[in-house]
Amino acid sequence: MARINENFQKLQAGYLFPEIGRRVKAFTDANPGAEVIRLGIGDVTLPLAPAIVEAMRDAAVAFGTHEGFHGYGPENGYDFLLDAILEHDFAARGVTLEASEVFVSDGSKQDSGNIQEIFGQDCSIAVTDPVYPVYVDTNVMAGRTGEADADGRYTGLTYLPATAENGFMPGPPSERVDLAYLCSPNNPTGAVASRENLEAWVAWARKNDAVLIFDAAYDSFIQDPALPHSIYEIDGAKDVAIEMRSFSKRAGFTGVRCAYTVVPKALTGSTSGGERVSLNALWARRHATKFNSVPYVIQKAAAAVFSPEGMKQTREQVAYYMANAQALRDGLGAAGLTLYGGEHAPYIWVRTPDGMSSWDCFDKLLNEAHVVCTPGSGFGASGEGYVRISAFNDRGKVDEAIARIVQALA
Amino acid sequence: MARINENFQKLQAGYLFPEIGRRVKAFTDANPGAEVIRLGIGDVTLPLAPAIVEAMRDAAVAFGTHEGFHGYGPENGYDFLLDAILEHDFAARGVTLEASEVFVSDGSKQDSGNIQEIFGQDCSIAVTDPVYPVYVDTNVMAGRTGEADADGRYTGLTYLPATAENGFMPGPPSERVDLAYLCSPNNPTGAVASRENLEAWVAWARKNDAVLIFDAAYDSFIQDPALPHSIYEIDGAKDVAIEMRSFSKRAGFTGVRCAYTVVPKALTGSTSGGERVSLNALWARRHATKFNSVPYVIQKAAAAVFSPEGMKQTREQVAYYMANAQALRDGLGAAGLTLYGGEHAPYIWVRTPDGMSSWDCFDKLLNEAHVVCTPGSGFGASGEGYVRISAFNDRGKVDEAIARIVQALA
Repeated sequence: MARINENFQKLQAGYLFPEIGRRVKAFTDANPGAEVIRLGIGDVTLPLAPAIVEAMRDAAVAFGTHEGFHGYGPENGYDFLLDAILEHDFAARGVTLEASEVFVSDGSKQDSGNIQEIFGQDCSIAVTDPVYPVYVDTNVMAGRTGEADADGRYTGLTYLPATAENGFMPGPPSERVDLAYLCSPNNPTGAVASRENLEAWVAWARKNDAVLIFDAAYDSFIQDPALPHSIYEIDGAKDVAIEMRSFSKRAGFTGVRCAYTVVPKALTGSTSGGERVSLNALWARRHATKFNSVPYVIQKAAAAVFSPEGMKQTREQVAYYMANAQALRDGLGAAGLTLYGGEHAPYIWVRTPDGMSSWDCFDKLLNEAHVVCTPGSGFGASGEGYVRISAFNDRGKVDEAIARIVQALA
Repeated sequence: MARINENFQKLQAGYLFPEIGRRVKAFTDANPGAEVIRLGIGDVTLPLAPAIVEAMRDAAVAFGTHEGFHGYGPENGYDFLLDAILEHDFAARGVTLEASEVFVSDGSKQDSGNIQEIFGQDCSIAVTDPVYPVYVDTNVMAGRTGEADADGRYTGLTYLPATAENGFMPGPPSERVDLAYLCSPNNPTGAVASRENLEAWVAWARKNDAVLIFDAAYDSFIQDPALPHSIYEIDGAKDVAIEMRSFSKRAGFTGVRCAYTVVPKALTGSTSGGERVSLNALWARRHATKFNSVPYVIQKAAAAVFSPEGMKQTREQVAYYMANAQALRDGLGAAGLTLYGGEHAPYIWVRTPDGMSSWDCFDKLLNEAHVVCTPGSGFGASGEGYVRISAFNDRGKVDEAIARIVQALA
């Protein structure tokens, strides 16, 4: 008989966001008149910027002509997009990369879930806690963990608690691990890594021959120009770090789907015999074998993010969401709620009042305020006692949500 | 130190098509004036059909409006696309499926590469030989094989030779295997499975508690209405088969990217303790954790394939390519070349003359005829002595290619 991958059975409940979706659907089915405000899943709400729409429309129309039609694309992405990425996301901040170090993909969720495939089965792994669930779940599915304990922590993983005490930005572990997943600006806590934070991680990785998987999907929300956007702004990082970026939040691409991963040529892993092997070559092979490039029209849309109009328009969208974040910080803070984040990230990390559990707070906000948040415990045991509130929504709804949350919780 | 996945080092050379691309680039760099005709990778050449272009363009424009914008989509695909698939690809042929049994994706390459993740590490696997390399390579990368021998066959896999004697459609293996990958109409041989072929496979899978992975990416090229398009047209197949379909070849989507996989609710695998587990639930979990749905504009384009105009226009495109296939069969056959396929598939499987090796024939056609084919041995040891010639090109170029191939080989 065909045996299943039994590692899947170690996974806790459903993936977090489908579970939230199920609870929201149950509520709306039972309360069809309720005007629910969604500050949960972190989905963008503004329409796609005009410069991007035009590029996508023009590419679609061109596909109906012999000259404008494109079949299979280059596996790592079209040069017009790779060149724009290299210039605007890296060279502009003093980082030099080659096009063959950048791999265009359909999402950072996919990339951060798939990257573990190029590493050995016995690699030891550190994640922050709370954490974006994909980093953990994909390693569980690959068999790199044991079972989960009562708090949802899997044996065999090293969890680094992100707490108010360490500014939600834990440093490297004291025990040896091979791979560490970092995310800054952080999902879910909204914290941001300082240059010193990243320098400590890079120094640790270099000293311990470890690899950092740096998820910078939210870098466009950084407000302080002195803060690093790329881990490659740290000397020596190209020897130890993989970086992921996304167009989802910076340009409203959650339903458009484009992202990229950087695997520097200098980065290597090791065979059991001690031979050093290029991780760029392994990821290139994985990409060529299991992926077939991003739709041409979508790559054209992504390239338009870097046009002068695209940059101006997407910066205005980010500013709009960050004004929402400031309103949430101001409104909920004034009501006495303890909160973090929202300064360089579109997420506010709110302490639940009176020791309420995360899911109880989620249910209370859903049932009483008709506001959808994300329970902090869904991101890990150290997220218990928090909820994540997203700044992605129309300003009017955010203001209404603030008033309702204050009434329900404060 | 971070260990790599050493299974990657078992993989032979590059993935086939990048290797072909390298040889073609070397030739064109050295012969910039040569007019190369590409009948190799099997990429479509006709522009996207007008009905599809219009749908994609309209969806792109709508994304610039509050009403028409869409963020994250439903993980398995939008209902408008799922419903069209159920109606036109299945109900029209007497097959009843539920929407939750269909998973929209960005390609059958991805799906056929990823499906192995839901199965146990110790599953035994059968593939036909020659075979689409992704089925094999992804299982090598996952560690389900040993090393390759001198012919490129990996120990631990069961190879079923597809030969002229068995009509390039081998039956089930005599030894026990858990999973078998089938492809009909076949890539690369152009053979097509009869109802009796599929009945034998389904009966074998039911008797042996095995799972069939049926790749029907080329079903639209079937010319005889009596031949099955879906394996679910065979009684009992829903208990034992997963099916993959693609818009790539039927509607010119190689650069647009949309496909889907069917995992029936009735299909189960087994735990080591003998518990039966739904493969639909496992694939749903995999899809939700490692994928983030196909771009909305692309799903709108795919749905337009099923509109009356879309069906008419894409059928005309398929007929255009099949007329090319007929011309190739006629022209190369008249010149005395032995060939197969091309009757229900866009591929002609040509015997190399005088016992020439596949790669020698590839190089000869590239250097002397300036025609790109695909060496049969790139698809497996039993493909040695054949080349695959694709019918995807403009008719004028196909006619020119026929003349040049005949001059070089016959």
